[in-house]
Amino acid sequence: MIADTLSYFESRRAKIVGALEGIAPASDAAREPLRRILEFCVRGKMIRGCLVFLGAEAARSSAGAAPEIPLAAASMELFQAGLLVHDDIMDRDELRRGAPTIHARYAAELRERGIDEAPHVGEALGICLGDICYFEAYAALARALEGAFRADPARAGAAGRIFALCSSVLSEVAVAQMTDVSWGSGREEVPEEEILAMYRGKTAHYSFSLPLCVGALCAGGPDLVGPFMALGERLGVLFQIRDDELGLFGQAEAIGKGRGSDLREGKKTLFRARLLAAAPAAEQGRLRSLFGGEVEADAGDLAYLRRLAEGLGVLRGIAELSRRTEAEALTILDGLRGMPPGVAAVFEGLVEYVTRRER
Amino acid sequence: MIADTLSYFESRRAKIVGALEGIAPASDAAREPLRRILEFCVRGKMIRGCLVFLGAEAARSSAGAAPEIPLAAASMELFQAGLLVHDDIMDRDELRRGAPTIHARYAAELRERGIDEAPHVGEALGICLGDICYFEAYAALARALEGAFRADPARAGAAGRIFALCSSVLSEVAVAQMTDVSWGSGREEVPEEEILAMYRGKTAHYSFSLPLCVGALCAGGPDLVGPFMALGERLGVLFQIRDDELGLFGQAEAIGKGRGSDLREGKKTLFRARLLAAAPAAEQGRLRSLFGGEVEADAGDLAYLRRLAEGLGVLRGIAELSRRTEAEALTILDGLRGMPPGVAAVFEGLVEYVTRRER
Repeated sequence: MIADTLSYFESRRAKIVGALEGIAPASDAAREPLRRILEFCVRGKMIRGCLVFLGAEAARSSAGAAPEIPLAAASMELFQAGLLVHDDIMDRDELRRGAPTIHARYAAELRERGIDEAPHVGEALGICLGDICYFEAYAALARALEGAFRADPARAGAAGRIFALCSSVLSEVAVAQMTDVSWGSGREEVPEEEILAMYRGKTAHYSFSLPLCVGALCAGGPDLVGPFMALGERLGVLFQIRDDELGLFGQAEAIGKGRGSDLREGKKTLFRARLLAAAPAAEQGRLRSLFGGEVEADAGDLAYLRRLAEGLGVLRGIAELSRRTEAEALTILDGLRGMPPGVAAVFEGLVEYVTRRER
Repeated sequence: MIADTLSYFESRRAKIVGALEGIAPASDAAREPLRRILEFCVRGKMIRGCLVFLGAEAARSSAGAAPEIPLAAASMELFQAGLLVHDDIMDRDELRRGAPTIHARYAAELRERGIDEAPHVGEALGICLGDICYFEAYAALARALEGAFRADPARAGAAGRIFALCSSVLSEVAVAQMTDVSWGSGREEVPEEEILAMYRGKTAHYSFSLPLCVGALCAGGPDLVGPFMALGERLGVLFQIRDDELGLFGQAEAIGKGRGSDLREGKKTLFRARLLAAAPAAEQGRLRSLFGGEVEADAGDLAYLRRLAEGLGVLRGIAELSRRTEAEALTILDGLRGMPPGVAAVFEGLVEYVTRRER
């Protein structure tokens, strides 16, 4: 079932790439940054964009053919590109999606031209490029909804809601990113509720709820914003729990980052919070030095973490939370009556994918 | 007449501050960044926000009272805050509007808490805060236009145009900023036409045309987008020519930056391009070392620049361009029939202000 969902995504992905390629530069000066943005976008999986199609098809089976859907989906990918370009500057990452990050690439080009302070100027150009992504995303969204604004008042209302929802969810994600940066630079542990709030603010609303709602609002039909916000929260928490698991115990080749890389970065995960809360005093020293990224974790350390988490019931507790969240997601889906059966199956595959994906 | 325009701005400024203060944080985590953004905004002159009122009053005399104008004006100030916060990171500026810049302030606070790499984390938080400004700006704009989206199709169409115009002009300004960063890091001279294109892209469309058009579109009435785009281009070029003049020969106390500071930063101005193009070979060495910021320019250097520019007719040529541009602006204003006389006088004072301001 995951395979069906992934092949559904693959087919929608092609339409998003087409919409992105159709964005014309407004000036000669815009040509070069737009080309970089496009190259960056097409290296991604474009799940957010695909969810716009899925949200639209849930609301109205024929909506996938509506002219605004591909461009609205493209705008989600442009937002994501802007956030990632800025994130990579903040995290000083040099690699993303198997290629140099945007600011690292600029810095390398500037170095070749003998420019002083190439790393700083590269970051400056990266900040600009991220900003361009945001503004081009809104421009694409405005173009996508152009017809709706003029057509009839009901559709114009939906267009207004789309702009409002995008902006408030994006503000939420930028605030969450700020909290994440603060956590990364501090040494205090973060309580479980705040970590779950971060999962909702940084992943769930933005990566799942928003694109589903945008699709549904574009398509018209029944108002799915409420159930899609709730569904997105579950999908986001499931995704993040699995992401944490892969970041600790996953295979480096499959997930594209080293095993234990979350340890090195000192990431504040649910697993970490629960394990530190449950572990006896005698283990706290080793745990804190592992979670603090002070020592490079080897296979023995990872086996130790797994053994300890199993013994203390932490893995069972998280699996239980995951099962409960999955059940809630499926209940919300059951409540969405009138979806074409094919669309419902894609949603079920999506729940399975975020819960059990291997990469 | 400048005084009347400035007092008009001052009265509108108070309404924008009120609208900004009315923006409620969406979560506890958003409270602190929003407070910083508000503090940052209220230290500015808010000319862009005031121009939203002026554009609205030009289109319809009673529009100043329309409920969406103050919030739409506030959104222009939020965009500007985001751009400035990011600019200050790119330029490594520590001071803005007489106070520490956002990223410098974060870095100082982190240093006090003993955080490693406080300058880098301060920049990361600054990038996030700039992003939040953009998204809150769009959220404010969406809230301002909420009524329009629902009310009647004609107004919804205007709301759609406002989103599209904002996004394309902001993308243009971010592209121009990227070009500016590249110019700053390179050593090549930039031809006059490209400098004028930069004045239009980075100052004219964004700081003048956009807010006037947003106001006019909010107010309804005659379609003023065409004349306001054209007027804004003239205002922007006049503003920038005067800005360059003040940056070279202005009094440090009045303009808040040192005399000759544009020389230190190696800024690519129209004055520079014309002087380098006109100067004989014997002067090129001294000129280039002054414009390259290699030597600290003293009063004698500035007197030399002025003498040379006068002798070669460069100052006269630029004054001539300024006079011609001012005349074009006044002709466009004359064409805007039906403006209330008080509003027309504010526009005339605005033309005078951008052309002859002392600070």
